[in-house]
Amino acid sequence: MSFGFDLLATDGAARAGLLRTAHGEVATPTFMAVGTAGTVKAMTTDAVRATGAKIVLGNTYHLMLRPTAERVARLGGLHKMMDWPGPILTDSGGFQIMSLAKLRKLDETGVTFRSHLDGSAHHLTPERSMEIQFLLDSTITMVLDECTKFPATEDEAAESMRLSARWARRSRDAFVPRDGYGQFGIVQGGVYEGLRRESVDALRAIGFEGYAIGGLAVGEGQAMMFEMLEITAPMLPADKPRYLMGVGTPDDLLGSVARGVDMFDCVMPTRAGRTARAFTSRGVFNLRNARFIDDARPLDEACGCLCCTRHTRAYLHHLIRCEEILGPMLLTMHNLTYYQSLMTGARAAIFERRYEAYCTATRAGWQES
Amino acid sequence: MSFGFDLLATDGAARAGLLRTAHGEVATPTFMAVGTAGTVKAMTTDAVRATGAKIVLGNTYHLMLRPTAERVARLGGLHKMMDWPGPILTDSGGFQIMSLAKLRKLDETGVTFRSHLDGSAHHLTPERSMEIQFLLDSTITMVLDECTKFPATEDEAAESMRLSARWARRSRDAFVPRDGYGQFGIVQGGVYEGLRRESVDALRAIGFEGYAIGGLAVGEGQAMMFEMLEITAPMLPADKPRYLMGVGTPDDLLGSVARGVDMFDCVMPTRAGRTARAFTSRGVFNLRNARFIDDARPLDEACGCLCCTRHTRAYLHHLIRCEEILGPMLLTMHNLTYYQSLMTGARAAIFERRYEAYCTATRAGWQES
Repeated sequence: MSFGFDLLATDGAARAGLLRTAHGEVATPTFMAVGTAGTVKAMTTDAVRATGAKIVLGNTYHLMLRPTAERVARLGGLHKMMDWPGPILTDSGGFQIMSLAKLRKLDETGVTFRSHLDGSAHHLTPERSMEIQFLLDSTITMVLDECTKFPATEDEAAESMRLSARWARRSRDAFVPRDGYGQFGIVQGGVYEGLRRESVDALRAIGFEGYAIGGLAVGEGQAMMFEMLEITAPMLPADKPRYLMGVGTPDDLLGSVARGVDMFDCVMPTRAGRTARAFTSRGVFNLRNARFIDDARPLDEACGCLCCTRHTRAYLHHLIRCEEILGPMLLTMHNLTYYQSLMTGARAAIFERRYEAYCTATRAGWQES
Repeated sequence: MSFGFDLLATDGAARAGLLRTAHGEVATPTFMAVGTAGTVKAMTTDAVRATGAKIVLGNTYHLMLRPTAERVARLGGLHKMMDWPGPILTDSGGFQIMSLAKLRKLDETGVTFRSHLDGSAHHLTPERSMEIQFLLDSTITMVLDECTKFPATEDEAAESMRLSARWARRSRDAFVPRDGYGQFGIVQGGVYEGLRRESVDALRAIGFEGYAIGGLAVGEGQAMMFEMLEITAPMLPADKPRYLMGVGTPDDLLGSVARGVDMFDCVMPTRAGRTARAFTSRGVFNLRNARFIDDARPLDEACGCLCCTRHTRAYLHHLIRCEEILGPMLLTMHNLTYYQSLMTGARAAIFERRYEAYCTATRAGWQES
């Protein structure tokens, strides 16, 4: 089957669609659980499936270092290695190099860095990033880009965006087209409308199966992020999926869907789950808090996940206090289920043209805890 | 239903039976997964069930400190709190006090100690231990005893065993009989046949629903342990279950079943799973070992667990190297499944009167890795 995206309904700028890939279909808007090193942390893949997730994300930077792309390929690719036959999107490695690696040096050819694990030297070019993602058997390959820092002057943002545009061209040339596989370009340009426009034009001239909006959620704040989405999303082709990278809180997701975004990824629900925090229909809870010690209610009465249907807040509090692994396991399960249900609810509301009311009701729920 | 034990088959001294309790039946010989603080570490209860486990063990010492017995009772008991409707055996707390607590002081009334967690002072008597286990809603309550240290002189072992016998009497008096619930006495007496006999006689005079053999696996070695089992097991009534506490390796289990033991518990399969070690039909593996880095075989080809049917040794090695929580989760799943299948195989072999051949074949497999 060919890779494709069907736009099925809109409600204002909000969109409901269907992404079709070699590894299955994904209803959008969708949240991609982050499986950094070939595992969604603290979750079996059966548990990931049970949250309603249809697509997961893998990190090129982590996987190229351990177990290495060649090793993943020998094991039959990332799908087989981690037991996730569904779609997988992989990032290009660029973002983690800038945030995690040591002695980073960027030039026209690519980026040279030392591993944060053992100090070993590596050189990542657009061509090598595409090769790695090919070896991983990634369903959706991301171009190598530079995530422009915030704040950046217009000159800095322009220079960075233009480098990313040249890398996007090289990434496209190095991408091996396969039936049902796709590649996404990444819009940069900082907080400058003209640069965002120039970036979109450059990427559309190349032509990708989807478009990511990069360089946001890097410190600019939600208001500025939403403003940039309002400017950028309408520049993108309506018939291709739009992916906002590294976002975010449930409120970020609702507001970004309202502005035309289809896909998200973020470590927030998984990381929060490992630090005792739960996202619920009644807001965010920290289960370490002593107020839960005798609370026999389910974590979220509106949730159908294993954590919420079988256990109490008091038990979760107990597990966390005792540093039992089951605590992070159950909270991660719940948080991912909550994120999925948020997107499922959004999609249904868009079809029924009541997306704004859905957001209002959902946000009101968060105030009721 | 009433608590009971049916002896269904024997092969030499090895026994196959059925334990009947208020919370369900347990085919014996059986291994009880250890759920110290109200969770089998790194496992959902669904995953515990999937290993074939029918009964789990809870630790009175841990639960009395956190979340406290009264709090467990308010949450509906341990079954409900941890989502394990099946049988639960709880120990008396005595063993962990001696191994974990600070400033332990033992006298006729019981044992005074300070919590290893916060230094708080506690006094555990036979009566309080029974009350705690009642509050936990334990299916099988253990008497409070002193686990005699090894080595101990005959005088020391005698004094210790006689204290345990007096506590067993008080424990029985404090036990609240309930339909389908039982209480086990614990045989002590060190490595002295005469003292073991005296202990058994004292316990049988009181009368319990089952008998545990305590004071073994405390440093005396497998040969001495087996010798003591050969002496002690025949002293016990044939129509009651026999439980060897805190044992052991797969080989310990096979040899102890051969000597008439029906029930076991040990942290070994769960603890090993969290330290990269796997018990398999081909022996013990340490998955941290670099020899597994490209090993695309299942951990144990003879095993039907999720870990072995979905993943490779190379992936497990990768997870462990990356310190991913899924590594301990999958290895714990496998190890518990292996222990259960070892007992299931033993039971089938006893029914077919080929238990010795089963042990020989199983031990031969361990040499083939």
